Amino acid sequence: MNDLNPSPRLLLGPGPSPVHPRVLRTMTAPLVGYLDPEWLAMMDEEQAALRETFLTKNIFTLPMSGTGSAGMEAALCNFLEQGDTVIVGCNGFFSERMCEMATRYSAKVVRVEKPWGEVFTLDEIKSALEANKPVKMVALVHAETSTGALQPLEGFAELIHKHGALFMLDCVTSLSGAPLKVDEWGIDIAYSGSQKCLGCPPGLSPFTANERAMDVARNRKAKTPNWYLDVTLIEKYWSKDRAYHHTPSTTLHYGFREGLRLVSEEGLENRWARHRQNAEYLWEKLEALDLSMHVEAKNRLPPLTTVRVPAGVDEVAVRTKLRDNYNIEIAGGFGPLKGKIWRVGLMGFGSRKENVTLLAEALREVLGR
Amino acid sequence: MNDLNPSPRLLLGPGPSPVHPRVLRTMTAPLVGYLDPEWLAMMDEEQAALRETFLTKNIFTLPMSGTGSAGMEAALCNFLEQGDTVIVGCNGFFSERMCEMATRYSAKVVRVEKPWGEVFTLDEIKSALEANKPVKMVALVHAETSTGALQPLEGFAELIHKHGALFMLDCVTSLSGAPLKVDEWGIDIAYSGSQKCLGCPPGLSPFTANERAMDVARNRKAKTPNWYLDVTLIEKYWSKDRAYHHTPSTTLHYGFREGLRLVSEEGLENRWARHRQNAEYLWEKLEALDLSMHVEAKNRLPPLTTVRVPAGVDEVAVRTKLRDNYNIEIAGGFGPLKGKIWRVGLMGFGSRKENVTLLAEALREVLGR
Repeated sequence: MNDLNPSPRLLLGPGPSPVHPRVLRTMTAPLVGYLDPEWLAMMDEEQAALRETFLTKNIFTLPMSGTGSAGMEAALCNFLEQGDTVIVGCNGFFSERMCEMATRYSAKVVRVEKPWGEVFTLDEIKSALEANKPVKMVALVHAETSTGALQPLEGFAELIHKHGALFMLDCVTSLSGAPLKVDEWGIDIAYSGSQKCLGCPPGLSPFTANERAMDVARNRKAKTPNWYLDVTLIEKYWSKDRAYHHTPSTTLHYGFREGLRLVSEEGLENRWARHRQNAEYLWEKLEALDLSMHVEAKNRLPPLTTVRVPAGVDEVAVRTKLRDNYNIEIAGGFGPLKGKIWRVGLMGFGSRKENVTLLAEALREVLGR
Repeated sequence: MNDLNPSPRLLLGPGPSPVHPRVLRTMTAPLVGYLDPEWLAMMDEEQAALRETFLTKNIFTLPMSGTGSAGMEAALCNFLEQGDTVIVGCNGFFSERMCEMATRYSAKVVRVEKPWGEVFTLDEIKSALEANKPVKMVALVHAETSTGALQPLEGFAELIHKHGALFMLDCVTSLSGAPLKVDEWGIDIAYSGSQKCLGCPPGLSPFTANERAMDVARNRKAKTPNWYLDVTLIEKYWSKDRAYHHTPSTTLHYGFREGLRLVSEEGLENRWARHRQNAEYLWEKLEALDLSMHVEAKNRLPPLTTVRVPAGVDEVAVRTKLRDNYNIEIAGGFGPLKGKIWRVGLMGFGSRKENVTLLAEALREVLGR
């Protein structure tokens, strides 16, 4: 094997996004043990900063030891028991994954469906809640990385709580890249990924659950059939007890703390605004190339844009040219959108004006426009 | 929050072990996407090098996206179904964890018990196999990090296979630090951790399963109630299909590849010998301080030594002094060994003569001998 020498790709796909140099640098710090007082102090700092990023006071707020999919699984397996009803808003790849996981945990999955790229209205969720009483959980995707749609959330928590259900939200591609206010919006359980708008390497899943949700997990009839992701065990390590559960990834946490520090330095609202501004610049540049967006303007997700592939254009060939000739990564579509869209991510450190300028000009050359 | 500035601890505890500087340096390489041809080529290299380290030809050989405990859970949840009988050799903390996990997956757990620090004889496992037919799996810990015992394995696979069971082995603290020959020894499923003798940061669990085991997973009656760790989904990403499952931790994999490269450069047998030599030097130095080992010489695990705390000595105070005055981390005992032993790890990059010299002299000063 040779020295590892990856090409300097500009990651404008669905994640991982470009990692901030300060994050990578911090990850070279010497490791300390998982019960070292310095480590325990770092865990506290990490939790405090993550609470600020989620805009929550939830005690159980921490990075889970896995990617966003592990966060998704934790958000389902801890709170659903055999036979519980979960309503899943199905409008993209990741909600399908939720259905698959919930089924494995023997929950009764109620699918509310919408075409990929559209979002749910309050009435659609209301009908499902009324037709399937009692409902244990409503699970939605805030920012669908497979479609580029951003789910509006006004009134959802109130409705869901009126029916006694938990409100669970996938925030993988929204945390710190689009407005998300966990406490104010009444979200009971939320998770994200470190490798999207936080600009860290993949491998950690920021997670938060309020006491209402944690009480559900603590009072299960049967133990969660998943030891590694059991929040009732994990909370014993992340609280005063400091009871060893599993060895956290020291180095990933170092980087994650630095990523959160960058969020705090920039300010959450400024960061949301930056993601929005660069996305609007991208939409404008793409429209100038006569390209059209897949999602209607009001529901577009700033960190991830889906663009329709023009008729007669070989979408894979375009991506290959961008990668091989310009070192730029963008992605194609999944499932019903396969071959029909490109996905362009402007996340975290990657959400910068110059990246858009470069991509738009490279696309213009490749498309011959 | 300030700049992260952890103290330069010498990690001589149970892991994480000191990370080789080349591993940390490699982790600053720019990230590429999870379907980039350069990334896919790296996955192939990583798998080939890991097969050499496990001494196996198993196709399913890869680092799972989690710590050793995730590997343990994957080794159980994929291969056991409701009501299956699993014999667990219980002689330490990590076999207790196996029992807890297997119970959550509704397996019937048969405990074969031995005091912490002892190992199993072939006859003990044979009796359990004969008394509990049919047995689906026998699970043992090769290197018990909580006790310092190394389980001899001669004849075990033959016996276990004669009874039609799978042989599952926890190799968290043995992989590359003590002889381990997966194919030659007939082990069906094995897992380890990146942060022990491989000298990488925590966060990945090297895993291998042969076709006999994989066929069990592929032909389950019910899907594994664990999506994130489902080997039948993971194998589709780590094979020609390259079907996306979850986003791997690019940066951890970069470091892991470098860690495996260091193993290959040193040579596996040389590496085993180095771990053995430095452990023997440690035992000699500790005996010179009138300290005695917890495990009898023939079953001692070179990467992790357990030392008895002398009567009248405050074991926590000694560890605190080593940490605060010498920047050295060693660990205490768990469960029945709490307060009775210290645990000293000499793993990976940490297994070096000078570390032993320093620790022994620091201990001499702290104990006033």
